[in-house]
Amino acid sequence: MELLKELCEIHAPSGNEVLLKNFLIDYVKTHSANWKVQPEIIHGNDLQDCLILKFGDPRTAVFAHMDSIGFTVRYENQLVPIGGPDVKSGYELIGEDVLGPIECKLEVNDENQLSYKFGRPIKVGTELIFKCNFRETKDYIQSCYLDNRLGIYNTLQLTETLEDGLIVFSCWEEHGGGSVPFLIKYIHENYKIRQALISDITWITDGVKHGEGVVISMRDRNIPRRAFIEKIISKAQSSQIPFQLEVEGSGSSDGREIQLSPYPIDWCFIGAPEDHVHSPNEKVHKQDINAMISLYKILMKEL
Amino acid sequence: MELLKELCEIHAPSGNEVLLKNFLIDYVKTHSANWKVQPEIIHGNDLQDCLILKFGDPRTAVFAHMDSIGFTVRYENQLVPIGGPDVKSGYELIGEDVLGPIECKLEVNDENQLSYKFGRPIKVGTELIFKCNFRETKDYIQSCYLDNRLGIYNTLQLTETLEDGLIVFSCWEEHGGGSVPFLIKYIHENYKIRQALISDITWITDGVKHGEGVVISMRDRNIPRRAFIEKIISKAQSSQIPFQLEVEGSGSSDGREIQLSPYPIDWCFIGAPEDHVHSPNEKVHKQDINAMISLYKILMKEL
Amino acid sequence: MELLKELCEIHAPSGNEVLLKNFLIDYVKTHSANWKVQPEIIHGNDLQDCLILKFGDPRTAVFAHMDSIGFTVRYENQLVPIGGPDVKSGYELIGEDVLGPIECKLEVNDENQLSYKFGRPIKVGTELIFKCNFRETKDYIQSCYLDNRLGIYNTLQLTETLEDGLIVFSCWEEHGGGSVPFLIKYIHENYKIRQALISDITWITDGVKHGEGVVISMRDRNIPRRAFIEKIISKAQSSQIPFQLEVEGSGSSDGREIQLSPYPIDWCFIGAPEDHVHSPNEKVHKQDINAMISLYKILMKEL
Repeated sequence: MELLKELCEIHAPSGNEVLLKNFLIDYVKTHSANWKVQPEIIHGNDLQDCLILKFGDPRTAVFAHMDSIGFTVRYENQLVPIGGPDVKSGYELIGEDVLGPIECKLEVNDENQLSYKFGRPIKVGTELIFKCNFRETKDYIQSCYLDNRLGIYNTLQLTETLEDGLIVFSCWEEHGGGSVPFLIKYIHENYKIRQALISDITWITDGVKHGEGVVISMRDRNIPRRAFIEKIISKAQSSQIPFQLEVEGSGSSDGREIQLSPYPIDWCFIGAPEDHVHSPNEKVHKQDINAMISLYKILMKEL
Repeated sequence: MELLKELCEIHAPSGNEVLLKNFLIDYVKTHSANWKVQPEIIHGNDLQDCLILKFGDPRTAVFAHMDSIGFTVRYENQLVPIGGPDVKSGYELIGEDVLGPIECKLEVNDENQLSYKFGRPIKVGTELIFKCNFRETKDYIQSCYLDNRLGIYNTLQLTETLEDGLIVFSCWEEHGGGSVPFLIKYIHENYKIRQALISDITWITDGVKHGEGVVISMRDRNIPRRAFIEKIISKAQSSQIPFQLEVEGSGSSDGREIQLSPYPIDWCFIGAPEDHVHSPNEKVHKQDINAMISLYKILMKEL
Repeated sequence: MELLKELCEIHAPSGNEVLLKNFLIDYVKTHSANWKVQPEIIHGNDLQDCLILKFGDPRTAVFAHMDSIGFTVRYENQLVPIGGPDVKSGYELIGEDVLGPIECKLEVNDENQLSYKFGRPIKVGTELIFKCNFRETKDYIQSCYLDNRLGIYNTLQLTETLEDGLIVFSCWEEHGGGSVPFLIKYIHENYKIRQALISDITWITDGVKHGEGVVISMRDRNIPRRAFIEKIISKAQSSQIPFQLEVEGSGSSDGREIQLSPYPIDWCFIGAPEDHVHSPNEKVHKQDINAMISLYKILMKEL
């Protein structure tokens, strides 16, 4: 899990994902020699800070968002959220401005206004993220930003044996989106992709539990095309990999932007569930991570 | 009205419109021999579960959404809405899962949480829709899903004499959209379409009444381009067909996704008004249906 | 400021921007002889009521929305807002219907319902806008619709010396958008544009003040790509032009639709701040207007 820990520590709030992109390019370059298929690394001006790995002759794309929630420094000592972070006074935040590195505390007042506590003013516009406290027990991983560094970790486990497929690393998922539209355009126009899997983390609820397997989401705020979901469930059933079905009325993912794109691309959200969502203490069961990786390996072969 | 009744009974909640699509393809194949122009039937992978009928040399597209509101079975006996259904304890719901056909009752508790009452648990992810009770009197039609099976019925009346035009059957309109973007792309890139009419059902309000004619909507949540609306109103005026003007601040339709698409396509919502919206008792005046059909026939010729 | 006054008086609520478009075309035709570069005037069916001026070999596009907030007449004496106007009983509204010109008063009741007071019924669907009362003092300009006639005024000051660039006049910004998607498609596919500046007006807040310079927005409801914002801030710093940084969690602009478009285009909102937003008394400091014009001149050269 050393790789996952490293991923969780990288500064990449929505809009500023470049450090994580560079980490991933570096990872591919230093590891891909041993992979079954050498991927093409696609990035540059046409993709802003996004990154695509192309393996063989792709039929299906896996989407994993690189960005995390966080905070932007406003005026005085005020903070504005990036995405929807869990907020509690005392959470430790880190960042950097022209005056140097920052380690400060989040303050939440009675009116739910956010501010930081630090020995000096922080420059307007500075991004702060949770300080990473990565914890591993026999059964669980706990850290900030498992959403979605675990989704990325999942794709990096796929790379070793993947023969045909795209891995797409997106930006801004936590804050309104904006990169999936041009990513979708790119992969559909260049590779005629019609199938997408969303490698992301979902929530523990009264129907989704720790240790009971990877979650296949039948719907959240958006409803994917039934025929595609049923094909995936049927493949999961015959795989013997433990999985859980999710049905929710809220929540969203990169799937939403695929749904709304002008390309006829089916999508399905598949990921491990976590507790303490969007807090520094996101918690995932290791067996669910293993089930997630196993199911993706099968789906990328069979879809 | 036998055809309308049949349409109202088809299971096609947002995301699973395939049965209605197949019904329509079958209808066209068995009826089109007598039509003035034989349409091209366009469907397949590039359109997911959508369907386009192409008549002659099209200048204008009519959009009619196939999907309906409904409910998805969550965990325990909970339900999550598909779109925005009217909810009242006792409404009869139907569906089917692996254990067989389902006929159950909707329950709404004090906190507005939805559940079903049935003799056995229903499989997670199963879709339930209103049980159809189709009623016809001298003046009125009443049934669930007049929104938008009546909009589809309207287009099927057009087909007999239509010479030039597209009829576009869309998905997901009741639940966030997602098919109009690729449909618009397809029809603009292939046929340079710049005009769209939304064949859908609107609401009885303090300014829109039963029996006073088809409604031309000047705006709802979205505001279409003034010049196009005025052209349509002027054609309606010279047609002598009874019509009403609608001005609303809320409500939406497939027009919204046309408005937001990257293609310069004008649109206007034109449809009969109904009472008891999104309930099992949607009610429309027959004269308004006739006016709707008459106005579409003229507009498809003259626009 | 005579030009700005003229701009503020033009009837162009969202959806009906054609008078302002015609004014701008006329302005370019009568003034461009003296400009350094003669722009190509691009408009017509492919752009609905939008307008593009193309200077030389463009790398950056400036977006300025033409539309304003206002009101649509509903049934009886009711009004429905266009965009988000400030509402107070007594505000003077003007418009025109088949019976002639209208000058009436806005009424707001205890339940925040809007109506007009006028000697006769106004035709359903008629648009009303604020009556313009343009005021100029030594330091300030005050009028309705400085948002965004001042953004347009800014672009018209650029035209005189602009060598390479696009000026894009958009529609519907105040009411849900809908023209930026096809404008973006057009300018990216034709000119490979990757950079956009939003010439629009922002708000006076506890961190943004009158007379302290043009505002560079680091974020509002949307978060632009960090790398682009930092490039602009660095150019502003070396320019010596007074500027202020904005960090907000709400508010939006044409930048939002650029963010969500399927083209990899960076954007930044740059504009003077105003008080009394969306009221008949919008107020902007003249020094901030001058700073805005100066910064745009430099950015259009250096970006």
